[in-house]
Amino acid sequence: MSYPPIIRNLLKDLQKLPGVGAKTAERLVFHLLKAPVEDVLSLANNLRQLKEAVKKCRYCFSITEDDPCQICSDPKRDASVICVVEQPKDLLAIEKTGYYQGLYHVLLGRLAPLDNEHAENLTSDALKERIRNSLASPRPVKEIILATNPNLEGDTTALYLFNILKEFPLTVSRIARGIPSGSNIEFANQAILTDALVERKNFLRA
Amino acid sequence: MSYPPIIRNLLKDLQKLPGVGAKTAERLVFHLLKAPVEDVLSLANNLRQLKEAVKKCRYCFSITEDDPCQICSDPKRDASVICVVEQPKDLLAIEKTGYYQGLYHVLLGRLAPLDNEHAENLTSDALKERIRNSLASPRPVKEIILATNPNLEGDTTALYLFNILKEFPLTVSRIARGIPSGSNIEFANQAILTDALVERKNFLRA
Repeated sequence: MSYPPIIRNLLKDLQKLPGVGAKTAERLVFHLLKAPVEDVLSLANNLRQLKEAVKKCRYCFSITEDDPCQICSDPKRDASVICVVEQPKDLLAIEKTGYYQGLYHVLLGRLAPLDNEHAENLTSDALKERIRNSLASPRPVKEIILATNPNLEGDTTALYLFNILKEFPLTVSRIARGIPSGSNIEFANQAILTDALVERKNFLRA
Repeated sequence: MSYPPIIRNLLKDLQKLPGVGAKTAERLVFHLLKAPVEDVLSLANNLRQLKEAVKKCRYCFSITEDDPCQICSDPKRDASVICVVEQPKDLLAIEKTGYYQGLYHVLLGRLAPLDNEHAENLTSDALKERIRNSLASPRPVKEIILATNPNLEGDTTALYLFNILKEFPLTVSRIARGIPSGSNIEFANQAILTDALVERKNFLRA
């Protein structure tokens, strides 16, 4: 005697999700058994659609239902700047600021050899190809902004990209690091404060 | 600019799950985007089937693909004892011991007024009906074992059941409480040790 086959299969499927073990899977199943039918069918349907309708943009590798994505196909965006990010959610975070008007390139990863994330898994070859095509076009790219995360893996990835982009006549920049706006110096750690001191700039000057 | 509609909908659906907030939902979606297509389709399919093929047994209210369930329809089970549990997983836990040969009744809840779980949500009316029918049958039920959880809500539920079952000529028993087998007295809390002392029995006698 154990759970009916469907529940056993569902438990197995749920345990493949990150952070879901045997107990959590069980809790989810019993929640789903009680949940309104339309909620669960909607979840099932959207999961299916996620794999069937959501694609990667052929240029920037962001997730999109249209290929090319809205940003890459928008003629008002500034094609002379490409901001390189690790993940689509980083792109969204930058878009939310409303400040950036250029294009993006999503690496779909970072360099983290210990986590088995190597250069060949990144979309950096596609980035080089994209830059090559752009430089031969009427609106060539002039600057690459490396917006990988300000941590060990992100910094390593930025350094790797900087090296492979050396061959192109481009400005390669890295997002600024320092103390985060709206925070307190008191609560900033040593690394943040060191960055903020090292990268200090003349007050009220560029 | 935000996530494509399918992802927005999926995020909304995922956040209806217990313990899943905005950040976890996002993490799940990005995991699912990378996960093998067949894994996600299997999950979607099993979710749909959960609502379409998994039913409650008409007698014991346990989850089953066949109605009546395997246990209720097994002529070898002892119909003179019904073990009342809160949830189907409690039933499974007891089944795993291999010790119990009687029938079950799943309350699908417990009394917890503060969590808005009231008597009318339990399957206790169906239990009374079931006992009434059984007592008029050739194999009448003789004992009801109250196997609700040994905590405030479970004890309250057991007391409630004891009161509504008074009208029947039945033995109503409650599962024993004491120090759990395989544990250490050192690590047991006051409530457990008090139970173990109060419920002590003559050594090597029934």
